[in-house]
Order: sequence, then C-alpha cells, then structure tokens
Amino acid sequence: MTYCVGLMVDKGLVLLSDTRTNAGLDNISTYRKLFVFEEPGERVMVIQTAGSLSVTQTVIAKLNEAIEDPDATEKTSFMMAKTVLQSAEIIGNMLHQVSADIKAKMGRMDQASSASFIVSGQRRGGLQRMFLIYPEGNFIEATQDTPFLQIGEHKYGKPILDRVITADMPLEDASKAVLLSMDSTLRSNLSVGMPLDLAVIREGECRVSKSRRIEQGDQEFSALSAAWSQILRDGFMALH
Amino acid sequence: MTYCVGLMVDKGLVLLSDTRTNAGLDNISTYRKLFVFEEPGERVMVIQTAGSLSVTQTVIAKLNEAIEDPDATEKTSFMMAKTVLQSAEIIGNMLHQVSADIKAKMGRMDQASSASFIVSGQRRGGLQRMFLIYPEGNFIEATQDTPFLQIGEHKYGKPILDRVITADMPLEDASKAVLLSMDSTLRSNLSVGMPLDLAVIREGECRVSKSRRIEQGDQEFSALSAAWSQILRDGFMALH
Repeated sequence: MTYCVGLMVDKGLVLLSDTRTNAGLDNISTYRKLFVFEEPGERVMVIQTAGSLSVTQTVIAKLNEAIEDPDATEKTSFMMAKTVLQSAEIIGNMLHQVSADIKAKMGRMDQASSASFIVSGQRRGGLQRMFLIYPEGNFIEATQDTPFLQIGEHKYGKPILDRVITADMPLEDASKAVLLSMDSTLRSNLSVGMPLDLAVIREGECRVSKSRRIEQGDQEFSALSAAWSQILRDGFMALH
Repeated sequence: MTYCVGLMVDKGLVLLSDTRTNAGLDNISTYRKLFVFEEPGERVMVIQTAGSLSVTQTVIAKLNEAIEDPDATEKTSFMMAKTVLQSAEIIGNMLHQVSADIKAKMGRMDQASSASFIVSGQRRGGLQRMFLIYPEGNFIEATQDTPFLQIGEHKYGKPILDRVITADMPLEDASKAVLLSMDSTLRSNLSVGMPLDLAVIREGECRVSKSRRIEQGDQEFSALSAAWSQILRDGFMALH
C-alpha cells in the first residue's frame, strides 16, 4: 500500500508521500510516489500516486512523453494547460485511459489494477488548487472546509488531521501535521514505509520552496516522532 | 459499520463497542453489539459483534437458544464449555454455520453477509482469554505482546492503542485508552456512533465489574474527549 497526503492552507501546499510498494509481503521495494513538474515562477504541479505501480508508472511516463512532445498543445500537455483544473482533467483522462488498457489485459486475472492521484499546483496569476483523482479519472477538490486530501492507507493518519488542521495555519505547522499523520500510519501499518518525500510550495511562488527526502533514521523526523510519542504518553497519563 | 475493541491486560478485560448500524447512509439505527453472559463468580463471557446484522443477530439468538435448551451439553452451550477456548469454538462454529446459511440465500445477490466477533471471558480457576473470531469461524487470540483486538472500523483508533497500551497498565488507564480509541474513530468516521457500551471485568472475579452505556452527551465521556483534544492541540503547538 501507500500513504499520500496533501494539505492546502492559505499559505501554500504541503505534500507528503511514502515510497513503499509491495507485491505481497515478501516483495517490497522503494518507488517514488511524489512527482514534481515545474517551470519555476510560472507553474508548478505535483502528482502523488497510490495504487497499482504498473498503472501509476505508465501514467507518469505517458504524461512526461506528452509534455516533451514537440507538437504538445494545451490539450495534451498538462504543463501547457491554461489552469490547474485543466491540468487535472488531462491527468485524470490519462489515468482513465491507462487503467482501462491495463484492466482489459488483466480481465481474466481478476486482479486489482487501479490507482488514484492527488494533483496539486498553481499557475502564475491563478489560485493554488488541489484535486483527488479517482481511479476512473473523475475528481474532487480540496476546499477551505476540507483542506486536506489523502490516498492509500488514509485512516490511521486521519484523526490527527481532523483535530489540528485549519486553513489559516502556518506552513511550518502544516508540515508538522502531515509528518505526524504519516508517523501514525508508519507505526500502525507495515505496508507504508520510509523514506518519505516532502514538498512545500508557498502560495504565489509557483515553484517548490522546499523539497526533502526523509530517509530512515532522519534525525529531525525521528526527533519529531519521539517528541510526539512523549506528548501523547504524558498527555494520556495526565488525563483523568 | 462498527467499531469494537477489546483489551486484555494483567488486571482484567476492558471491552467497548459502539451501537450504530446502517444499511446505506439513510437507514441508520442503534443496535447493541456487546453481549454479556454471566454466572457471576463462576463464569463470564462477552461477545462483541461486527458485520451483517442479520448474521450477528441470528448467531446471538441461536447461541441463547442453545444455552436455554434443557438438553444443553458442554458441546452445545458455550456457557457449559470447560474452557473459554472451547466456548470460542462453539461460538465460531455457530458463526460459520449461520454465515454459510445466509450466504447460500444471498448467493444470487452478490451482497456481503459476513460478521466477526471478539469473544472474551474467564471461568473460575481458568485464565482470562480473548479471541477474535473471523467470518469463517476460525480465530486468533490476544497475548501479552498483542493485548488488544479490534473489529469493524479499526484503523482510526489503532495509532493511540499502539502507543499507550501495555499489559501491565491499570484497568482505569485501559478504560481511558479504549475510550480515546473510540473517540478518534467517532470523529473520523460517521458510520460509527454513540451510544457506547463499556464492560470491565476484573481478573479472577468472573463477573462484569462495571458495565456502562455511554449516551450521546455523556458528561464524563465528553469531558474526556474535550480534554484529550486540548492535550493534542496544545502538544501539537508546543512541538518543534
């Protein structure tokens, strides 16, 4: 499985994905699930992926091919689309098409081959936006009321987000929140694993302001995780 | 859906179930999912249920019928079985049989009709034990290393248990832990709902030491929930 979370607050976007993929418990690998596309200052787009690796890799590869095509147009390359919404449509259509192709091949196997994405970004002069694209290619959008989207193993990490997220929180707190949400998931579910990919995009900058791969044993993340455990345990003991 | 959690610590058993059932989002009812069977001082057994209401109700009704049958034997009545393990086997077999009957009827509908149970208890002179019975009737047992079992919507409430549960914790802390686990689930998932049924069984007493229905708006539970939210938010803000 996978856990990806995207948070859109007034100050910007904070995106976090794990990297564990598995085909059964004895076939575990590390694959990037957070993909950045940017024309710094002009446009930034991030795609986070969950689901069948054969679907997600093919979609990302075909999207890249469409971007690099010398005949690319605003209808085929999501990096040329007029709005983030139109980019999401191009990505959703590609997901729909690739899923259908692979599903047709897999038909007789009764094997799952679906995937879902979180697509977020901003174009110069436009608003920052974030979409959750379902396996069929349709999507929903993050709003002020629901400023976070999750794909994959989303349940373990939802309670902390439900409690602390507000649209007006600083980006540093937003990063802390997604890291704690991931930490809870990592502790409770083996199919989600380090390293992690974190990307932070300040509103209006149209570029990735901060991008970090957090490796197993990362001091900062370990300290955050340990401090949070201590807070929870101390809080639990103090509670009557 | 449902959330039931059972915790077996050295000092006793703490069992908590919600009561919400739904057939679609517009057909929501309250049904008890925690059933106590006791011969105080001699034997206590608790069954917590999750899954298809038609399966769980039929199993509980048939188990009751078997207990009340004047010709009941230790093979047919789980309240006469020699050990908690043998009780779990009788309950598991009944679940298996009822599920199979209902499944046969539902065959053409392609509808889910499975259920799972947490069965826990103690007989005078025996050890306290707790089992998770799967839809097929087979089961696993709680141990010192894994002192809690969950059925239904288990993921939201698992992170807090993973962090605070130890087999040597006092019963008061164990109650607090399952209530917080339920609170996280209630906040994040509409299909789990109040009121709640809590049962506490002190090790060796072979009776329910404390049984409580916690209604919507219960002052103690609301205070616990609010205090925990405050601890989490304060802890989150203090974290760097």
